[in-house]
Amino acid sequence: METPELIRRKRDGLVLTRAEIFDFVERYTRGEIPDYQTSALLMAIYFRGMDRRETADLTEAMLRSGRVLDFSALPQAKVDKHSTGGVGDKTSLIIAPAAAACGVLVPMISGRGLGHTGGTLDKLEAIPGFSPRLSYQEFHRVLEVCGLALGAATEEFAPADRKLYALRDVTATVESIPLITGSIMSKKLAEGIDGLVLDVKTGTGAFMQKLENARALATSLVNTGTAHGKRVHALITDMSQPLGNAVGNALEVIESVETLKGRGPRDLVELCRELTAHMLVLGKVTDSLDDARARYDSAIASGAAMERLARVVAEQGGNSRALEDYSLLPQAQFEDSIVAPEDGYIAGLEARVMGVASMILGAGRERSDATIDPAVGLVFEKKVGDAVCAGERVCVLYSNDRSRVPVALDMIRKAIAISPDPVSPPPLVLERILHAEGAVTMAE
Amino acid sequence: METPELIRRKRDGLVLTRAEIFDFVERYTRGEIPDYQTSALLMAIYFRGMDRRETADLTEAMLRSGRVLDFSALPQAKVDKHSTGGVGDKTSLIIAPAAAACGVLVPMISGRGLGHTGGTLDKLEAIPGFSPRLSYQEFHRVLEVCGLALGAATEEFAPADRKLYALRDVTATVESIPLITGSIMSKKLAEGIDGLVLDVKTGTGAFMQKLENARALATSLVNTGTAHGKRVHALITDMSQPLGNAVGNALEVIESVETLKGRGPRDLVELCRELTAHMLVLGKVTDSLDDARARYDSAIASGAAMERLARVVAEQGGNSRALEDYSLLPQAQFEDSIVAPEDGYIAGLEARVMGVASMILGAGRERSDATIDPAVGLVFEKKVGDAVCAGERVCVLYSNDRSRVPVALDMIRKAIAISPDPVSPPPLVLERILHAEGAVTMAE
Repeated sequence: METPELIRRKRDGLVLTRAEIFDFVERYTRGEIPDYQTSALLMAIYFRGMDRRETADLTEAMLRSGRVLDFSALPQAKVDKHSTGGVGDKTSLIIAPAAAACGVLVPMISGRGLGHTGGTLDKLEAIPGFSPRLSYQEFHRVLEVCGLALGAATEEFAPADRKLYALRDVTATVESIPLITGSIMSKKLAEGIDGLVLDVKTGTGAFMQKLENARALATSLVNTGTAHGKRVHALITDMSQPLGNAVGNALEVIESVETLKGRGPRDLVELCRELTAHMLVLGKVTDSLDDARARYDSAIASGAAMERLARVVAEQGGNSRALEDYSLLPQAQFEDSIVAPEDGYIAGLEARVMGVASMILGAGRERSDATIDPAVGLVFEKKVGDAVCAGERVCVLYSNDRSRVPVALDMIRKAIAISPDPVSPPPLVLERILHAEGAVTMAE
Repeated sequence: METPELIRRKRDGLVLTRAEIFDFVERYTRGEIPDYQTSALLMAIYFRGMDRRETADLTEAMLRSGRVLDFSALPQAKVDKHSTGGVGDKTSLIIAPAAAACGVLVPMISGRGLGHTGGTLDKLEAIPGFSPRLSYQEFHRVLEVCGLALGAATEEFAPADRKLYALRDVTATVESIPLITGSIMSKKLAEGIDGLVLDVKTGTGAFMQKLENARALATSLVNTGTAHGKRVHALITDMSQPLGNAVGNALEVIESVETLKGRGPRDLVELCRELTAHMLVLGKVTDSLDDARARYDSAIASGAAMERLARVVAEQGGNSRALEDYSLLPQAQFEDSIVAPEDGYIAGLEARVMGVASMILGAGRERSDATIDPAVGLVFEKKVGDAVCAGERVCVLYSNDRSRVPVALDMIRKAIAISPDPVSPPPLVLERILHAEGAVTMAE
């Protein structure tokens, strides 16, 4: 079929066939369909959507554009977690070793941060010497030895997604549930996993700010994973304030290690326990979520989870002594405090603003080619619901470039809301989507 | 504003400002905005539309991307006609000289045919020696001497439209009323006219097959012309069967000349009279349509209209003797007849199919870079409503390439419907849109 006719069919609301979708993805990846036709098709998909079968076919075509890892030689269940991105979201550093300590294999391929959200790779690379750039053979070996491996997506993975995402980013076609689904799931399925837990964030700091959009995305992701024969659970979780206390790469490594040592902040501990528990159920370690939660707590209490992180850091070239002696991590030169202007209760810590402020300090990147400063960031000493007295410290800024501090300080001050009346902390896990109703099974 | 944000605003249904539209058109025309962003914006416009003010601004921005002709040194009203395209539509060759004979100036810039529809330039170029490629000085002189000039759009006219149309053609974004409006009106307004009659075709052979779409386009065209301070009327006319009897370039020249000599087929004569009458009213030659119709009839009866065509052909390098001796026009080698298979009444002559059959014979082009054969085409001896006897001739095919004839013959046979019961000819002028209600006036 001629490409304009393909665009016209989607534009007019018709359902594309599996062959049409595969042909399009293959030809676009090979450079045989120009960007200007692809962006028109993407915009038509934005408006017309894709049904479950189309979305599953798009995901499979994108997946097959590149390499799919194979860990079938390892007998344990392979389970990963993916977050749609948030501020202070360092759960990967905690739950990957925790789940591995509980008996599943975690072949985790992560990305870098962009805009107000952080990326797991940036956090890991704050550990001196740590490298996520592993060959398949190295990744396989680390996974076998440690029960987890922490890699970076290479050019081999879903090249169709890399090319499509770059185009979506400059044509206002990012915010489409089937396209987001294809992008996330094609990369995750390339990990050769059996199960996947999705942490779909909602709230001001999330990509999907409204619960209904988060629910629609979570449903689409679960449907698509199910269509590919995978076990998939999605949790919709709060991202109205930063997760945990630390925002910034080395600061988040410290908080992750503290959490693995049993000293994590309440909200971070709760979310890590829930995500890990779902990973264990999907990996068939147990069929009870309560039992899985208890196994997570045991892995923390026994030090087994922490031992897994130290092992994988060492195997991937990192200095694991930095996990005991935090002074070996990158250090910021300056500290500035933000204190409460009045007595009351913390009513809001606007997540997106905190993420942007942290980015301005240098912890994140506005453009994908920018460099980051691993040492800088924020640490909150109060979270939503906490009581504060006038003059009490709410947040510490860690910085190296003084010129960036005033803007960040001002943004953060305005993003802290204090109420004279008591405030309840927001619920963390809002919904769980544990199976897809009526999900199609891949044909053929 | 960044281009992705502009796309996002239209995608989300917001109204673009005049400055945003001008900035986009200027930067796209200069090559500063890539095709892949423009096609995404075009698709967003396809889905979200544009309001009257946006459409008028788009048209003006496209108009200003190139040269605007100026005939203000000539005192008479400048009025043109534009058709959205049909099969056998040769009215321009008749009404331009007829209107000129009645006292308005007709600075007509025409295009070539594509697909199943013919183009005025192709028809004119069937006359040996005729050239539509005139400099502005030549065009001005011919207009002054003849009362009409028949030119081709050059690179100077609305370059934004040329670039946008080429992109729309390959990205399934042609069928958008604001984009069609901008394309048509930017080129017509560049002619420096005071008034414009639009012949918006509807029916199977038309671009707008449904009456409601033709009405929406006609309204948008009239609104946009009015917003630019022009007097604009639109007629919605039937294109369910070919207009007149001839389809094909030299064949249509002959039929046009015969019509100017008072021997035209009923439907063609009626439409030419109506379109010319509206041109005369818009040109303020008279304020009565009935009086204008009588003036058209007089210009034909007196030979004044025919004399104008002969004069303009001679001024533009053509052999005007060919308008008397048709053997000087390109001649087809072969004739094939299609006869009625049974007694009855012609109930349908599917216009689109007849146009495609003529294109297959070589009278039209499937791609814009194809060459055409000016001699070939079709002549219908019966039209819808006519009685026929079994074996009586309905259509003659004129061809030069025998290999193309069988397919064309077969298509045409299947596109002729014969009813045992009497059939009324379809009404020719379906609606008239003589002024735009609530049309905005151009600001600034």
